[in-house]
Amino acid sequence: MSVPGLENVIANETAISYLDVEKEEIVLRGYDLIELANNATYLDIAGLLLDGALPTPEERRLLEVKIKSEYGLPRNIQSILQLLPEQANMMDVLRTGISAIASYDEELDDRSNDANTHKAIRLLAKVPQIVANGFQATNNQPLIEPRKDLSYVSNFLYMITGNVPTLMEEEVFDQSLIAYSEHELPNSTFAARVIASTQSDLYGALTGAVASLKGTLHGGANEAVMYMLLEAQTEADLERLMLKKLSQKERIMGFGHRVYMRKADPRALLMKEALAELAAEKNAQELYDRCVAGEQVMKREKNLYPNLDYYAAPVFHLLGIPIDLFTPVFLAARTIGISAHVMEQHGNNRLFRPRVHYTGPRNLHPPIK
Amino acid sequence: MSVPGLENVIANETAISYLDVEKEEIVLRGYDLIELANNATYLDIAGLLLDGALPTPEERRLLEVKIKSEYGLPRNIQSILQLLPEQANMMDVLRTGISAIASYDEELDDRSNDANTHKAIRLLAKVPQIVANGFQATNNQPLIEPRKDLSYVSNFLYMITGNVPTLMEEEVFDQSLIAYSEHELPNSTFAARVIASTQSDLYGALTGAVASLKGTLHGGANEAVMYMLLEAQTEADLERLMLKKLSQKERIMGFGHRVYMRKADPRALLMKEALAELAAEKNAQELYDRCVAGEQVMKREKNLYPNLDYYAAPVFHLLGIPIDLFTPVFLAARTIGISAHVMEQHGNNRLFRPRVHYTGPRNLHPPIK
Ligand SMILES: CC(C)(COP(=O)(O)OP(=O)(O)OC[C@H]1O[C@@H](n2cnc3c(N)ncnc32)[C@H](O)[C@@H]1OP(=O)(O)O)[C@@H](O)C(=O)NCCC(=O)NCCS
Ligand SMILES: CC(C)(COP(=O)(O)OP(=O)(O)OC[C@H]1O[C@@H](n2cnc3c(N)ncnc32)[C@H](O)[C@@H]1OP(=O)(O)O)[C@@H](O)C(=O)NCCC(=O)NCCS
Repeated sequence: MSVPGLENVIANETAISYLDVEKEEIVLRGYDLIELANNATYLDIAGLLLDGALPTPEERRLLEVKIKSEYGLPRNIQSILQLLPEQANMMDVLRTGISAIASYDEELDDRSNDANTHKAIRLLAKVPQIVANGFQATNNQPLIEPRKDLSYVSNFLYMITGNVPTLMEEEVFDQSLIAYSEHELPNSTFAARVIASTQSDLYGALTGAVASLKGTLHGGANEAVMYMLLEAQTEADLERLMLKKLSQKERIMGFGHRVYMRKADPRALLMKEALAELAAEKNAQELYDRCVAGEQVMKREKNLYPNLDYYAAPVFHLLGIPIDLFTPVFLAARTIGISAHVMEQHGNNRLFRPRVHYTGPRNLHPPIK
Repeated sequence: MSVPGLENVIANETAISYLDVEKEEIVLRGYDLIELANNATYLDIAGLLLDGALPTPEERRLLEVKIKSEYGLPRNIQSILQLLPEQANMMDVLRTGISAIASYDEELDDRSNDANTHKAIRLLAKVPQIVANGFQATNNQPLIEPRKDLSYVSNFLYMITGNVPTLMEEEVFDQSLIAYSEHELPNSTFAARVIASTQSDLYGALTGAVASLKGTLHGGANEAVMYMLLEAQTEADLERLMLKKLSQKERIMGFGHRVYMRKADPRALLMKEALAELAAEKNAQELYDRCVAGEQVMKREKNLYPNLDYYAAPVFHLLGIPIDLFTPVFLAARTIGISAHVMEQHGNNRLFRPRVHYTGPRNLHPPIK
C-alpha cells in the first residue's frame, strides 16, 4: 500500500548530505553544517557542494572570480521582469525569471558534469540578481546592478536593500545563506531530482524547485512567520495569537519538521544566536524576546520545536530584506544544493516513475458513437 | 534500501486513472481510454477528468462556452514571448509562458476545488495559445489569435498551422489529444503532485511538469522519433539507422515503457490506426510503411514495443505541426490530466518528503576559524 507523502521512504542514494537526527547533525559531504557555518563562508560551502571538497582560500578566490565574471542579466530578461504585473508574487516572478534565462545558456542541454558546473556558477551569479531585480521591476523601482567590488555575499544584500551592509550584517547574512544552502531531500530538492531524471536540464529542475518552495508547508513558511511576528506587537500578543490559531486548528508556521519531528532543528539554534547578536546591534531586543516567548508557547502547548524558518525570518527582517523576498532568498541560497543534486542525478540516472493505488470505479462504458 | 527510480513503489492513491497492464487497459475514471478515444471527444475527457463523470452533450457544450470565454492572452504575456531568444527551445518558451501567466490569475493561491476548476479551464483556454504564439514569437511570425467560431480542437490546430483543419484532420487531432490527456503517474504528473503537496499552486505544479516533460526519456521522445523518421528516407534506411544506434548502445526513442515493459502501449496502436487513415488521405503511405518497418526491427532486435510517442510523431507531422511543437502539444493535451491530479492532491494532502540513503563520508572537520 502507499505511504502518504513517501514518509521515510528512501527515494535515492546521495553523497551530498544527510540528516542524522539521532546525532542531531546535518551532514554535508562529511562535515557538520553547523561547524561549517561557524568556520567557513557561503562560497566555501558552494565549492564543497560543487566539487566535493572544501576549497582552499585560493580556490575560493578563484570561484568568486568565476562567479563575478557571470554577473549581469540580459536586457531582455530585465524587460520580462518589468512586464510582470505589480501584484505578482515574488516566487512566481523568480520562477519566470529563472525559466526565461535558461534560453540564454548555450550549454543548456549538455548534462555533463563540466557543463552542469558552469550552469551552477551562472545560476549563483544570476539568481540573486533575478531576486532583487524582480522585486524592483514589479515595484516600479530602478533595477540595481551587481557591484564587483563587493564580496559575493555583500553584493547580494546590497542589490536587495540598496545599501552596502556592515561587516557584521554581511557575516550574519553569510551564515543564513549557509543555513539554507542544503538540507538533504526536502520537497523542492526531490522535485528537482524527479524532473532531472527525465534527462531534463538544470534550469528546468530549478524552476520546479521554485514552484515547490513557494508552498507554505515548505519555504513559504518564513514569510508567514514574519507576518505573525509583526501582527503581534508584544510577547503577550504573540502568545494570544498563537493560542487562537491553535484553538482554530491552524498550523503555526515555523514549527515542526517531517524529519526532526520532536527534536530541535540545529539551524534554528544557529539563527537564534545570530538573531541575538543582530538584535543587540540594532536595538531590537524586544523582537528577540518575542521570538523566544513564541518558542516557549509552542513547546508548552504542542511540544513542537522551531525550524530554520522561525528564526531566519526575524534575521532577514533586521537585515532590511522585504518580507516578500524571504522565500526567494531561501531559494537563492539553496540553488547550489539543488544544483549539486541535479548533477548527481544526471551522473547516475534512473527515471523516477512510481505507481499509484487506484481507488476509482472500474468497467464503465461510454455511449457508443 | 532505495529502489532506483521508485520503480513499482506506490506513491499515492488516486481515483483518476490506472494502468492495468495485465488487462491491457488504461483506466480513466472507470472507462477504458481506448473506448473513450473511439466514442467521445477531447472535451468529454476534459469534463470527465475535471468533474469525475462524462458530461452530457449539453454539459460539454457549456464547458466549451466556458473555455472560450477564457480565450486570449494578456498583451504583456505575448510581449514576454517575443522577448525570448530565437534559438529558444519551445518547451522552455512554454514553461516561461505558463509561469508568467500565473501572475494574472486572481484565484492563484485559492486551492479550493472550485478555484482549481476555474484555473484548469483557464489553462485549457490559454495553454494552446501559448504553444502556438510561443513558436510564432520566437520565429518572427505574426501571433495567431484564437477563433471562437471554430471548435476547441479545430482552433488549437488552426492556431498552430494557420489553416482551418478538415473534419478528418480535426478528428485525428482530437484523438491524439485524448491519447495524451492522462496516463496515471508518469514523471511529469508525479512532479506536479510533489510540488502541489507543499500547498503550492496549480500553475507552479504545471510549470514543473513542463520542465519534466521536456526530457528525452519522457515527452521529448516524440520529437526525437520524428527526426529519426525523417533522417531515414526509406524502410531500409530506417533499419540501418536503428541497427547502428543499437550497436552503439543508444536508445531508440519511441520504444519501451517503465510500466508496459514488454507489452504494447494501447495508445500506440490507436495512433497507428489514425496514422493509417491519415496517410491514405495525404498520400503518405510510404511514411506509414516506414514506421511499421521500424516497429518490426525493434520487436525482432530488442523485443521492444512502440509507445505512444512513436506513432503520435508521424501523425502530428502529417497534421502540419512543426516538430518543435510536438512536446508542447503533448503538454497542452496533458494539462487537463495534471490539473485533475493537482486538485486531488490539494483535496487530500500530505507533504511529499522522502529520505535518502547516504553514501558520502562522515566525521570531517573544517579548519577552525
Ligand atoms: C513541516 C510540516 C509540514 C511537517 O509536517 P508532517 O511531517 O507532514 O507532519 P504532520 O502534518 O502529520 O504533523 C504531525 C502533527 O503535528 C502537528 N503539527 C505539525 N506542525 C505543526 C505546526 N507547525 N503547528 C501546529 N501543529 C503542527 C500536526 O497538526 C499533527 O498533529 P495531529 O497528528 O494531531 O494531526 C509541519 O510541521 C508544518 O506544517 N509546519 C509548519 C510549516 C513550516 O514551518 N514549514 C517549514 C518547514 S522547514
Ligand atoms: C521509457 C524508458 C525510459 C523506460 O525505461 P526504464 O523503465 O527506466 O527501463 P530501463 O532503462 O532499465 O530499460 C530496460 C532495458 O531495456 C533497454 N531499453 C529500454 N528502452 C529502450 C529503447 N528505447 N531502446 C533501446 N533499448 C531500450 C534498456 O537499455 C535496458 O536494457 P539493459 O537491461 O540491457 O540495460 C525507456 O524505455 C526509454 O528510454 N525509452 C526511450 C524514450 C521514450 O520513448 N520515452 C517515451 C516514454 S512514453
